[in-house]
Amino acid sequence: MSGPSTTAGQGARRRDAQASRDAILRAARIMFARYPYTDITLKAVAERAGVSAPLIVKYFGNKERLFAHILSFDEDTEALLDAPLEDMGRHMVTHLLTSQAERNTAPVLRIAFAPLHSSHGEYGEVLRANFRRQVVARLTERLSGPDAAVRAELAMSMLLGLGIMYGIARGEAVRAADIADLADRYSPALQELLSGHR
Amino acid sequence: MSGPSTTAGQGARRRDAQASRDAILRAARIMFARYPYTDITLKAVAERAGVSAPLIVKYFGNKERLFAHILSFDEDTEALLDAPLEDMGRHMVTHLLTSQAERNTAPVLRIAFAPLHSSHGEYGEVLRANFRRQVVARLTERLSGPDAAVRAELAMSMLLGLGIMYGIARGEAVRAADIADLADRYSPALQELLSGHR
Repeated sequence: MSGPSTTAGQGARRRDAQASRDAILRAARIMFARYPYTDITLKAVAERAGVSAPLIVKYFGNKERLFAHILSFDEDTEALLDAPLEDMGRHMVTHLLTSQAERNTAPVLRIAFAPLHSSHGEYGEVLRANFRRQVVARLTERLSGPDAAVRAELAMSMLLGLGIMYGIARGEAVRAADIADLADRYSPALQELLSGHR
Repeated sequence: MSGPSTTAGQGARRRDAQASRDAILRAARIMFARYPYTDITLKAVAERAGVSAPLIVKYFGNKERLFAHILSFDEDTEALLDAPLEDMGRHMVTHLLTSQAERNTAPVLRIAFAPLHSSHGEYGEVLRANFRRQVVARLTERLSGPDAAVRAELAMSMLLGLGIMYGIARGEAVRAADIADLADRYSPALQELLSGHR
């Protein structure tokens, strides 16, 4: 049994673990969008994800923590805003596109699919509240000058739109371009909003 | 029976007709996202919309034309791009925000919700193909200079993101601002892409 302990075996196991985590999060998101929170069991999430309920406990602790994870922008916001203000526009664009290219999604984009209607339970409203507090408010805090809140929202608009074009509309020209080239063209506009020149 | 023939009565009937058309389109979109096209009947769309099947025929002709209407960006693109190139950025932003403010949605935003997975039938792929041909390609044709396609996609990214922020994330600062103020801040960046300065 030396195979699994080799570097290649460890890499494969890490990929399996990441795939299982992703499947669990995807299943939990679907269930949370469709059923009242109190009706959802870890067993049902596990079945949809094709894993065991104990594996969910191993990765996420319990049901509450699993759903807190799904609806939180905290972790991604820290990475998204992890740059000095004068480089923030380029950092945000590069962070988003790298995530899209590598993982085919970007956590901040979840807000674009927040349901508007209460037939989806509280999912949409909780996502919107978290997005305001965990993303927009934190970006706003970083800005100086007048109208910081509207500038932060407009900069985030540009970022979200780029993610939609790349990941959902699957724009052919954007997907064929280098991330660095896209950042050259797109981030100056974000930066002007962040720096207060617009 | 003079009431319905007064101006107020005609206004009310026009509003009813618009509400019925909107309900039919909404129902058809939901069904098309969920079931194979060939399984969908006008009767089922009518039931979901709360109208009669003959009313759908009256408004849209037949099933094929109803679905062509849902998946086409043609009509909106004509209005969206109806400006000289040097004013196009501001026109696009104003067109989108006016539609959002008045009708709570904007036709071009449908591309943001195009499903990625074939479990939704052909809906996502048809929307993406139409978006490329009816929106991105037409905007690209209007542009001169190098890299027109990537500039068109990036300008559309900015527009889509603004629609997501306003209509889905429901950004408080953006929703509290005047459309003209938002256009002042946001459209110069679109215009630079369209004019080929970025």
